[in-house]
Formats: sequence, structure tokens, C-alpha cells
Amino acid sequence: MSLLFIRETEARSLISMAQAIDAVENVFRSLSSGESQNIPRQRVRIPGVMLHSLSAAVSPLGYVGWKNYTTTRTQARFHIALYNPDGEWVSLLEADWLGQLRTGAASGVATRLIAKEDAQHVAIFGSGKQARTQLQAVCAVRNIQHATVFSNTPERREEFARTMSDETGIQVVAADSPAECVAQAEIICTATTSKEPVVTAEMLRAGVHINAVGSNALNRAELSADCFTRIDKVVCDDVDSCRNEAGDFVGPMASGSLQWEKISPLASLVTKSEGARTNREEITLFKSVGMAIEDIAVAAIVYEAAREANIGTELEI
Amino acid sequence: MSLLFIRETEARSLISMAQAIDAVENVFRSLSSGESQNIPRQRVRIPGVMLHSLSAAVSPLGYVGWKNYTTTRTQARFHIALYNPDGEWVSLLEADWLGQLRTGAASGVATRLIAKEDAQHVAIFGSGKQARTQLQAVCAVRNIQHATVFSNTPERREEFARTMSDETGIQVVAADSPAECVAQAEIICTATTSKEPVVTAEMLRAGVHINAVGSNALNRAELSADCFTRIDKVVCDDVDSCRNEAGDFVGPMASGSLQWEKISPLASLVTKSEGARTNREEITLFKSVGMAIEDIAVAAIVYEAAREANIGTELEI
Repeated sequence: MSLLFIRETEARSLISMAQAIDAVENVFRSLSSGESQNIPRQRVRIPGVMLHSLSAAVSPLGYVGWKNYTTTRTQARFHIALYNPDGEWVSLLEADWLGQLRTGAASGVATRLIAKEDAQHVAIFGSGKQARTQLQAVCAVRNIQHATVFSNTPERREEFARTMSDETGIQVVAADSPAECVAQAEIICTATTSKEPVVTAEMLRAGVHINAVGSNALNRAELSADCFTRIDKVVCDDVDSCRNEAGDFVGPMASGSLQWEKISPLASLVTKSEGARTNREEITLFKSVGMAIEDIAVAAIVYEAAREANIGTELEI
Repeated sequence: MSLLFIRETEARSLISMAQAIDAVENVFRSLSSGESQNIPRQRVRIPGVMLHSLSAAVSPLGYVGWKNYTTTRTQARFHIALYNPDGEWVSLLEADWLGQLRTGAASGVATRLIAKEDAQHVAIFGSGKQARTQLQAVCAVRNIQHATVFSNTPERREEFARTMSDETGIQVVAADSPAECVAQAEIICTATTSKEPVVTAEMLRAGVHINAVGSNALNRAELSADCFTRIDKVVCDDVDSCRNEAGDFVGPMASGSLQWEKISPLASLVTKSEGARTNREEITLFKSVGMAIEDIAVAAIVYEAAREANIGTELEI
């Protein structure tokens, strides 16, 4: 049996953010209709390493598959596998960047559905790889003119501003403080590894949409609990996964400013024909922790493009 | 990065049933002490194929890993992966036979702990691959003199009797009926794919120990519900997994002849110094659906032996 191994460097040329956003929107639609199934992330650990395992089935694409990754203090290693309807393991993909891409794409789907249509200014918290795809995704779905970035290390946020200005063609400016970062923000993306909240209630302007993607552990939150006294609409990628992993929800649930039944899954939103925003003043949040259906959706595009273009390495197993 | 791919044909020479039984006993001991973690099987499906995913961490062995397998109407394909404490993916193993081996080994552990010490006669239901390793495992832990086998197809049970007589060196006889099969049985192993019970209450002699491994789905049972009015002690591999998968427990739970709190996990038994059987008349059951810790335990032995013997294929990924 032979499967196609696709390296990260090969994957990058085979899928665009716009394609990823459409693929992720479609896969959420198929989840809503029952044509896809998603198993939330499971984690096990021994001293030194944690293994994270997710799986999904996406009937419209014709694949079942998994993502498994290990994390240590210094490194993370990600792989996605795809199997066809005959049960054959057809592809193994390196999936660090693919994970960033699909997380960005999910924010892109949510932003397209919920953010103000004429939003021009985005504020990014965090200057790592996840922050890059958040900005790319928002730029793909709104006519963004200006971005600000804040992270704790001045050199890193300045480097982010430089490289992302070049890449996006818009003006990306490093802010000296969180308050400066959000001063004009109509969209905020948080993609930090902070354990302390980076966004607080007084930083939220009327009409702002937030994508919070940095925390997928109950002991980490990027939004202070008081934000939820001001947020009008909360959407998440998957309610079950968020019960296990959305640290941002822990504080507001405890204080009573948020209830699970007030949180809408993204899958229910994508099936509606009208936008999810009801007025220009509403403050909205999309909280995502990541789902295997998203991984399978982007991996399927990469795999099929790689087969087409004769890219990748056949592994005989 | 390079990982060692080990084919089924290569694995067979690298581990014995006796080694597997000890490894599985040890891994249950480490589960009991909290040094191992096990995630029950999760399943997703699209038309044509189902993906089954399990994962575990085994600290005393120094591995985290997963088993993923696909099943279609005609075929099943199994793989196990091992990662070291540095998070490196060190091995990928074909795992059809390894799965049969570890399922046999778990029955071996339970049989060693619970069956009568002088048991000499075993009855096997089913003549497939899982039935083979059940017989091998029981023979490894008790001084078995005589085995009987029953399955629906006469040719298959006769073939099983022939080949397993050769392999085990004991007399294995094909029985013409379930009743004939169990007439002298002190140990019964059920390893069928039957949806209808193959063992009923009147077939159970005083003092018999049963290993029931065939069903890992709630709609399949090998033991009739009335068996549980006679079974004195019920042990299972994992209570959480059995809640999801042990079809044998559905009937007796519904009729009230079994309660979850009366079922002991194998992990709690292996840590006791004395045997689990209290008298020669007791009827005992070990129900297993399969756990990832067992897969990791046997895969670790195979991987380390393969490295030692320079067996397997390096995959560059």
C-alpha cells in the first residue's frame, strides 16, 4: 500500500486562505446537516510529552481522518491522515501550518458572517504564527485598510508589522500598548499563549467583533470575564470542545454573565442565509479551540492538489 | 525525521504470547497507579468506511501513542503509532495481528488471575483470528490439556481444530454444537462476530471462567442476559469503554441482573497479591472491548525488539 506524504513546504503552494475559508464554511455546513462528524480533542501525557488526538468524518469530501500531534516544552509536531471510502490510508500530511491555516479560516468564516461588513481596522494580539493567519483570514473577507498588532516583546510585534505589511499590502503597525492596539479596532483577533487576559471590557468599542483563538485549555483565557457583560452574541466552533477547552468561558460562566445555552455553534450560523449581526452596535465574539473537521477540510484540498500536481512523496506501508 | 515502519509479518517474530501477557498485566498495573492514561475508542463514519481511534500514554514504558483503524464491509486496516518523551514519532506498526495478540493477552491476564488454577479444559466459540489468540493465551497461563471449538461453519471449526492442535500441541476438537463444546469446559472464550448470544445460562458449569471478547458494540452480545443470573463475579478491561461498547452488558443491565457498580476493572485486580477467585464453584466473567494501553504495551516490545534486530523499514517523514 502506498500513501502520499506531503510536507509543510509542499502544502503551502497548494492551498490559499480563500480556499481554506470556503472549505471550512462548507464543512461546518455539512456538520450542521449531519453529513460530517467531529470528535473533540483528547489528550494523554507522560513526563515530557503530551499527545493530542482528534478525528472526523466528512462525507461530502469522501474522507475520514485524524490529526495527532505531540507537544513538549520546546516543540510541537503535527500530522493529519486521510482515508478514502475504501478504508485506504491515502495521505499523511505535516500539519503545523495547516493547523494555523484552518484556525485562521474558521475566524474568516465567522468574521464574514458576523463582523460589520464595512469593517476596515483589525487589531491583532499576539505576533506568532497563529496571529499571521488570523490577519490573513480577516483580510480575505473584509476590506481591511489598517491593522495594529500588540504582543509583549517589542521586537516581535515590530517584526510582525513589517513582514505582514509586506505580505498583506496593508499598513500593519506595532502598537505600544493593548489600549493603543484596539483604539480604532472594528475587529479584534487574539492569538496569544497568555494565561492572563489580554482584552478587557473597557477595550471593547461598540460594534466590534472578536475572534479569540489563543486558548484551548481551561486554565488559559485571553478575554477577561468582564468582557462578557458587554458581549452581545457569542458563537463558538464546537460547544462540546469548548466545554473541555475554552478557558475564556470559565470566568464568565462562574460569575453568571455567560450561559452555555446562549452560545451558538458556528455550524448553526453558516446555514442561515442572512448575516448573524443584527445592528452596528452589537459586540460579537467567535471563540474557537479547533476541530478535526477543519483539519480534514484543508488537508483534503492539499492532498487532491498534490496528487494533481505530482507533489509529495509516496510512502510504501 | 525518520520513523521505523514494522510490518505484521515482521512483528510476529518479535513478541511471544507470554511476553504480551506480562506486558499487558504491567500496563494495567500502571493504569491502576495513575502512571498510564487510556482514551476509549472513538468512531466516525462516512458511507463505506468507519474510522476507529484510540490513544494512550504509558509512563513506565516511555511512550504515548495511538491506534487508528478503518473498517469497511470487506476489510479492516490497523495501525499503531509510538512517540517518545521528546515528542518524536518513532514507530508505525501494522496492527491487525497485534490487536489479536493484545486481546488474547488481556484474556490471559484475567484467566491467570481468576480462572481455577487447575483448569484443564477450554471451550472456544469462534474460529477466526481472535479465537486463535484466545486459545494461545489461555494455554500460556493454565495447564490446558484439551480444547473444544464451535463456530457455525463446520469446515471452519474443523480447520481451526487442525491448525491449533498443531500449534498448541494439545488436543483441539471441533464440537458439533455449543452444548457439546462447553460440556467439560472450565474456561470458555467467546470470540465471535455473532449478534445473537452464543452462550446461555444453562451452558455454565459451576466454577467456569468466561472470557468474552467478541462484541465491542452495544448491538452485539455473545452472552445471553440470563447468564448474569448465574455469574458471580464480573471483571472488565475498562468501565468507561464498556459503557460505550459492551453489548453483553446491555441486556442484564436492563433486566436488573447486573449493575455497573458490581463490575471490577481489571486494573484493580492486578494490584492485589491474592487471586480474585474465592472458591471453586464461583462463575466468573472477564469482558473486554480493547484498550489503547494494551496496544501501546505490545507495540513497545515489538518496536524495541525491531530496533535491536535491525528489522523494519525507515520512513523519512
